[in-house]
Amino acid sequence: MNNILLAQINPIVGNLDYNYEKISSSLDYATANNADLTIFSELALFGSPVLDLLIKYPRLLAHSSEYIKKIEQLSQNTPFLCGFCECANPDDNTCYNSLGFFADGKLKKVIRKSILPFKDEFFDGRSFVSYPFEPDDRIIEFKDKRFFVLFSNEIFNSDIVNSACNLSPDYVICVASFISRTHRNEVLNSALNQISQSLKARVLFVNQTGATDSFVTYGQSRVINNGKIVAQARAFDEDNLIFNTSGDKNRIEQSPDSTFLMQDLFNLDYDADLERIYGTVKLGIKDYFSKNNFKTAVLGLSGGLDSTVCAVLLADVLGPNNVIGVSMPSSITSKESKDDAGCLAKNLGINFYQVPIGQMTQASSVTFDDAFEKIELNRSQKRVQGSLTFDNIQARSRAMILWGISNEFSSALPIATSDKSELYMGYATINGDMSGSFAPICDITKTKLFALGRWLNKNSQFKDAIPQSVLTKPPGAELAINPDTGKPLTAEEALMPYEFLDEVIWRIEVKKQDLDSMLDDKFIYETKNKLDKDTKKAWLNKFYKRLSTSTFKGSLMPPGVICDYASINKCVSLMPITAKFIL
Amino acid sequence: MNNILLAQINPIVGNLDYNYEKISSSLDYATANNADLTIFSELALFGSPVLDLLIKYPRLLAHSSEYIKKIEQLSQNTPFLCGFCECANPDDNTCYNSLGFFADGKLKKVIRKSILPFKDEFFDGRSFVSYPFEPDDRIIEFKDKRFFVLFSNEIFNSDIVNSACNLSPDYVICVASFISRTHRNEVLNSALNQISQSLKARVLFVNQTGATDSFVTYGQSRVINNGKIVAQARAFDEDNLIFNTSGDKNRIEQSPDSTFLMQDLFNLDYDADLERIYGTVKLGIKDYFSKNNFKTAVLGLSGGLDSTVCAVLLADVLGPNNVIGVSMPSSITSKESKDDAGCLAKNLGINFYQVPIGQMTQASSVTFDDAFEKIELNRSQKRVQGSLTFDNIQARSRAMILWGISNEFSSALPIATSDKSELYMGYATINGDMSGSFAPICDITKTKLFALGRWLNKNSQFKDAIPQSVLTKPPGAELAINPDTGKPLTAEEALMPYEFLDEVIWRIEVKKQDLDSMLDDKFIYETKNKLDKDTKKAWLNKFYKRLSTSTFKGSLMPPGVICDYASINKCVSLMPITAKFIL
Repeated sequence: MNNILLAQINPIVGNLDYNYEKISSSLDYATANNADLTIFSELALFGSPVLDLLIKYPRLLAHSSEYIKKIEQLSQNTPFLCGFCECANPDDNTCYNSLGFFADGKLKKVIRKSILPFKDEFFDGRSFVSYPFEPDDRIIEFKDKRFFVLFSNEIFNSDIVNSACNLSPDYVICVASFISRTHRNEVLNSALNQISQSLKARVLFVNQTGATDSFVTYGQSRVINNGKIVAQARAFDEDNLIFNTSGDKNRIEQSPDSTFLMQDLFNLDYDADLERIYGTVKLGIKDYFSKNNFKTAVLGLSGGLDSTVCAVLLADVLGPNNVIGVSMPSSITSKESKDDAGCLAKNLGINFYQVPIGQMTQASSVTFDDAFEKIELNRSQKRVQGSLTFDNIQARSRAMILWGISNEFSSALPIATSDKSELYMGYATINGDMSGSFAPICDITKTKLFALGRWLNKNSQFKDAIPQSVLTKPPGAELAINPDTGKPLTAEEALMPYEFLDEVIWRIEVKKQDLDSMLDDKFIYETKNKLDKDTKKAWLNKFYKRLSTSTFKGSLMPPGVICDYASINKCVSLMPITAKFIL
Repeated sequence: MNNILLAQINPIVGNLDYNYEKISSSLDYATANNADLTIFSELALFGSPVLDLLIKYPRLLAHSSEYIKKIEQLSQNTPFLCGFCECANPDDNTCYNSLGFFADGKLKKVIRKSILPFKDEFFDGRSFVSYPFEPDDRIIEFKDKRFFVLFSNEIFNSDIVNSACNLSPDYVICVASFISRTHRNEVLNSALNQISQSLKARVLFVNQTGATDSFVTYGQSRVINNGKIVAQARAFDEDNLIFNTSGDKNRIEQSPDSTFLMQDLFNLDYDADLERIYGTVKLGIKDYFSKNNFKTAVLGLSGGLDSTVCAVLLADVLGPNNVIGVSMPSSITSKESKDDAGCLAKNLGINFYQVPIGQMTQASSVTFDDAFEKIELNRSQKRVQGSLTFDNIQARSRAMILWGISNEFSSALPIATSDKSELYMGYATINGDMSGSFAPICDITKTKLFALGRWLNKNSQFKDAIPQSVLTKPPGAELAINPDTGKPLTAEEALMPYEFLDEVIWRIEVKKQDLDSMLDDKFIYETKNKLDKDTKKAWLNKFYKRLSTSTFKGSLMPPGVICDYASINKCVSLMPITAKFIL
């Protein structure tokens, strides 16, 4: 046993033919590079997450069985381990999440997952049935070596891990399809490291790479031995990582830090996390477009932070020629905003058009005025004073233009540019800026987005593309004028300082705090800014009041990339809209 | 033990104060009516489904514990069983789905659910941990009687049911929160009947009523004894059902049919199911509005079937005065359509306004033409010939007006009127007719909707409100002219006959068939219509081609009422958008 190949492929869920070709080509690499054994990730043949695809179309299970036979043939030249969906009972279409050991043209052994997760982004428990755990079942013997197999989240189950102690495996194989989240990788390294040390075995961790809708699996397959990462594959991309068991010629990475404390991990300091966020969102965009056969993105460029960061990321992934930026000024739009949008587009080299919305908002306003007058005449209910109706006409006219471009130029997808802070506060217009087919930054808070903007200026292929003013001016929707200042109302005037707002989100998601404990606790914001108790309370009350209606708005958002520690995205956080609760 | 009260309440998820009052008032009823024991439904104190509310806000668990103490007090006068969320481990915020036996001001015994479902509309497995099943744990002894307790889906588990045989219970209690679906009730009756006969015990089935988002629990709590329903509460409404154990004075219903065959149940004959569909959608609308503090619905009235049926249902639930119907004709809109819309509104007595969209579509068209010319000049990509852009401007201008009314007249919610057949085919406009806050008929196919229309004319409070022409003319979006006929393009011209289309949906959802087996099988459609093999194949291919992109469109739909055997609704059917598969 000299060389083991960790084959990190990017499958398409349900596309067995495509995935078969990926597997076959990795096995060619294995043969060419003298690998004794190749290991693919969890469910590599079918793709992960399966969600309800197999439940809805059980015929895919029969289809999958045909492809298991097909990959059996591939093992004539080189042995390998590959994950697949295995029919457990043809009568009720239940299936196992299984890993097969293929050698000499045959499926020699099947190992089946026991612990099926169904929290957060994990929905395995819906499609798969659990197979009773027996330590001996998990052993594969090959070339005088003993391999003990674990599936993804099973590495966190101490009973299962400890059961391997008596089996003295030489290697622990962990096949996975973990998605990228804040601090996921540190937690993972800690667990893998512990396994390596307590079982005195090398851990071979093979993770899927690639995105399905909101779910971005991130690769970074690795070998851990005695507290050290001794070989590691790329993150956010396919990779064939040959691990040389004698230790030389491996891509060696830093040791995983096994001494960290969980409470230290979950802090608000996200500078170190920006590269991961960048990689996650990029792969999320890339695969949503390429796997769904879309080529071009079309988005409104307001000159604000959200659309700016989206434009940079889209240009980075799709190429500047495949991004259409549209500046759609109204009478409120400031010259600075228009300039910033134009300057950004020029810096990125994307397609850029100015489409003033004056005629549309004018026609809508006239039509609305006529309609509202009739409605008010006939109904007891009165129009809302100082309503947002006419402000929102601007946002909705813009969305209409983007969807029109999408219809007129095939394969162009409109982008929803809302960020996580706005979504928590419902500070976005339904059918306006919330509208689009995909929401790249919906899991990134505003303060983090500012940091990401600065990071992109330094580290992306588009150096300094983002105008400084975008990174310094106060964010706002530019839909209304603040009567106190005579200038467009800023978001912080309408809401509260983003630094405070984002800390509340962090305290809810990471620290699981409620209103009372937040009032008692000293905010990081308070260590840097003066804040009296009444204002703090007023901000928190405003936050919770807005939160209670934001779920309704969130139910109308398109899917978007998940990347934070926890998410508001409805694909992973199944929140009832119809619920009342006091916190 | 003379009287047992089945207390069928409609809780609001997470609103412990509200639910406490409901429980308290049912117990007052129990005391006034000499009930010896009162039984509430599954999770009555917290409300069901919990979805991820407890995971996101674990503080609610502590809040729930306080209310358990509060309801303890209520048992000083009268004993009862009530479901609640019970903290299992404060360290990790796990909890049990529990049922408490409260008597003499104390919580005397707690029984915990073992089988946690997580398929279809069931997400219990995310929030709750399973408690190991022990038959003896499930027994409550009270007034010389033995009660054996089951939770909802556990009634389908034969191991659990049979374990009660040796315990000879007098009563089997089943607490549940089942939602309304096609044939759910027959399947339920069959299971409850079998339990009653095999355990020689009376079955007390208490089901929640009320809707949360897409989930409509339907009540109809009942007592089954020896193959007969001997008492039954109302469906789709709160009810206090006193069951008199000596057998007289009970509301007696028909016997459940225990002889049916499953394959007979799942047919395409839905006439018998229309009353249930009506009740389900009505309660779905009612609770979405009332529990979320909305009063008024606003919808476009095209004179077509979808908006017509929606208008009748909304007028029925909210009252005609709380429905705003808007006819928004364009140059394509026929006189018949306008007349039908006006006639319907008059028959229903709802608010009705005509808002012609000519100015808006005109301004948009001019703006678009300018924009598209610039884009075409600068980009290699050419405009799509015969694109839908200008057709869709009409649908999107209409949605803009509805959202404008929603902004201007507070608490008015725009309604998305898409039906299930259209959603399967992606035959709807994003940000147009697909736009709205709630989709009442998104789980009803077109042919069923025609039948429901006829049924409403006979059975709703608005007799013959639907103009005959709406029920007979071919459906169509009236966005484009068919060059062959010179008339607006009908949906069946664009797609295929709805009778065929809906049968395909039924074969996929109920019979789990694929393309090949459908080609081999004889359609019911074929027994009534001539259909050659090539046309059948062409229609099926068109269906699957459109299906492959409809998931993308479906991801942008608002929540809506689930009522069919299986659903396309993203709240219950977690389909990956990014997936490719051959069927």
